[in-house]
Amino acid sequence: MTVRVDLNISLDGFATTTDQTPENPFGEDWSRLVHTYVSTRTFRERVLHDTSGTGTTGINDDYAQAYFAELGAEIMGAGMFGLHDHQDDPDWRGWWGKEPPFRVPVFVLTHTPRPTIEFDNGTTFTFIDAAPEEALATAIAAAGGRDVRVGGGPTTVKQFLRAGLVDQLHVAIVPILLGRGIRLWDDLRGLESGYTISSEAAESGVIHLTLRR
Amino acid sequence: MTVRVDLNISLDGFATTTDQTPENPFGEDWSRLVHTYVSTRTFRERVLHDTSGTGTTGINDDYAQAYFAELGAEIMGAGMFGLHDHQDDPDWRGWWGKEPPFRVPVFVLTHTPRPTIEFDNGTTFTFIDAAPEEALATAIAAAGGRDVRVGGGPTTVKQFLRAGLVDQLHVAIVPILLGRGIRLWDDLRGLESGYTISSEAAESGVIHLTLRR
Repeated sequence: MTVRVDLNISLDGFATTTDQTPENPFGEDWSRLVHTYVSTRTFRERVLHDTSGTGTTGINDDYAQAYFAELGAEIMGAGMFGLHDHQDDPDWRGWWGKEPPFRVPVFVLTHTPRPTIEFDNGTTFTFIDAAPEEALATAIAAAGGRDVRVGGGPTTVKQFLRAGLVDQLHVAIVPILLGRGIRLWDDLRGLESGYTISSEAAESGVIHLTLRR
Repeated sequence: MTVRVDLNISLDGFATTTDQTPENPFGEDWSRLVHTYVSTRTFRERVLHDTSGTGTTGINDDYAQAYFAELGAEIMGAGMFGLHDHQDDPDWRGWWGKEPPFRVPVFVLTHTPRPTIEFDNGTTFTFIDAAPEEALATAIAAAGGRDVRVGGGPTTVKQFLRAGLVDQLHVAIVPILLGRGIRLWDDLRGLESGYTISSEAAESGVIHLTLRR
């Protein structure tokens, strides 16, 4: 059982973008940040339900496959689920449509829990008001021996990193400079001690960096 | 003729460290940031004059060799030469001892020029009060058709990058999180457009990223 983080970050370290508008709820920067990832065959099949076989293969797709493999449960912050944008909508069920790609129990951290949401494909969203250690224990219990991922956003991920709860941190460093957003690396001086670091360059110029305990 | 930049940066983007003290004039962070580079056979021979043949070979050393190859002139900021720390010392001749590794004309940007310093190995330090475009024209004229490097520090490099004067930017991304220092990437949103980007992972976990026009 591994507690994992997988994020896309820009070369200047931004893991979340801040140029969203009502007309463009994800924003231009986000599209550019995740372009390589969403172009993979695995993402297109698993998230977009595009079974045409288009999408890239190779190193980026290998990591996209690993993203979903062996996953037993996921933890995410309220913002990643969309609660900050939809706090007044009791029927909000997340960004991922009728078949969210997780297919496992997902625990959403929030100070204002709402009823659990269940999908036919095995995805459940359970809303809990818990500290990182407690949330992790809950997710581990639900994961049946498989991995737990702390999915995001960066503020949530940093809480788990600073608490020493993450066994494996994989970042896809996308070679673009955004100049704005929320940085992953702030206030994490010395994090690398205690991890073994490996890096791999993909065809697209994206760098996959992995810190493993 | 290529106008080049070569820098070591931490995973969180710091290209210059700020933990220097009178007792430790380079600082602990700087030693960690440049550890891989100064361990290469090329650096040990060229900068430390260690001809024992120790030092690492492989990808990191390939980049160290490229660092010095084809160089015709160098431009650096006053801080990189040490003027900020030695402004009251008219006899200051830089950090590099009797045989500075440049072996070419070096132009030091300063608002308070001092007399040119010449070394037997072909290194000269000429102090000029000039805007980036003017300094570059001077360096190109001195380089005899070979490359001009903007050596650092990051504040100087950013001036040249923002002015669109750099043909090739190579950064060695060292997988450590410093959490303090001067960032290379601030205020460079969109820099990557106009460049082709390639990346290569070295044995040590260091990532060599190159932007070429």
